Amino acid sequence: MAAKIKASLVLKRYKNLQEVVLDKDLARLGDMYVNFVHSLALSQKLQRPTGVKVNNRALAEAVKKSGLRKMLPRRIDRHAQGNAAEALIVYAWLQEVMSFEDCLKILRGGDDPTEAFTRLLQEIGKKLGAPYE
Amino acid sequence: MAAKIKASLVLKRYKNLQEVVLDKDLARLGDMYVNFVHSLALSQKLQRPTGVKVNNRALAEAVKKSGLRKMLPRRIDRHAQGNAAEALIVYAWLQEVMSFEDCLKILRGGDDPTEAFTRLLQEIGKKLGAPYE
Repeated sequence: MAAKIKASLVLKRYKNLQEVVLDKDLARLGDMYVNFVHSLALSQKLQRPTGVKVNNRALAEAVKKSGLRKMLPRRIDRHAQGNAAEALIVYAWLQEVMSFEDCLKILRGGDDPTEAFTRLLQEIGKKLGAPYE
Repeated sequence: MAAKIKASLVLKRYKNLQEVVLDKDLARLGDMYVNFVHSLALSQKLQRPTGVKVNNRALAEAVKKSGLRKMLPRRIDRHAQGNAAEALIVYAWLQEVMSFEDCLKILRGGDDPTEAFTRLLQEIGKKLGAPYE
């Protein structure tokens, strides 16, 4: 799927990862991606279709636990922390760093959304070749 | 992507297409799917990332124009008409009747959301082997 999407048509030019996680437009697209993949993971776990939005609190918590928080400005509210996670997750998909299937697998695995998204952000951090700092 | 998703893990057993389009749980998952694919199509058109929810009015209008309305009970409000479109679109993806890429292409093509979703619902109708009635 990702190969045909052509990230070049969608992504802006970013100087570094900090620009990526602070891009609000990318966070808007990421919001839609994250809600869909989370809903599908939950549907698979429950073995019936369902759709739920990801709780912003869980995302912000995952940003802290994964270490991604260190990349963000000190004064930043919970909403912006959630945005950072959403931007990074869809960036990783568009750049073919983390496939939809792998993302789905990780989200299906966690006991709760905070744990699942923490692991997802950690894996993306590893694949991007740098711990968050 | 679709091949690995295993629709059997997610979809209930449906006697007919009318049961599909009236399944509220499936519409919830469909809501997430539709918002994501619509946002990605728009991002590609604008050549920058963005995320927008699909307007329920546009979906309900597409349900009428595509002919899908005929499958639904006479007394059904606009919200439920939008749900029917969302349920059918994600059903088509899970059943591998309409791939994510094809869905994206059709949505990218329309001049406005109503037109794009009308075409999408018509194509899905054709692929499911029956005009809506």
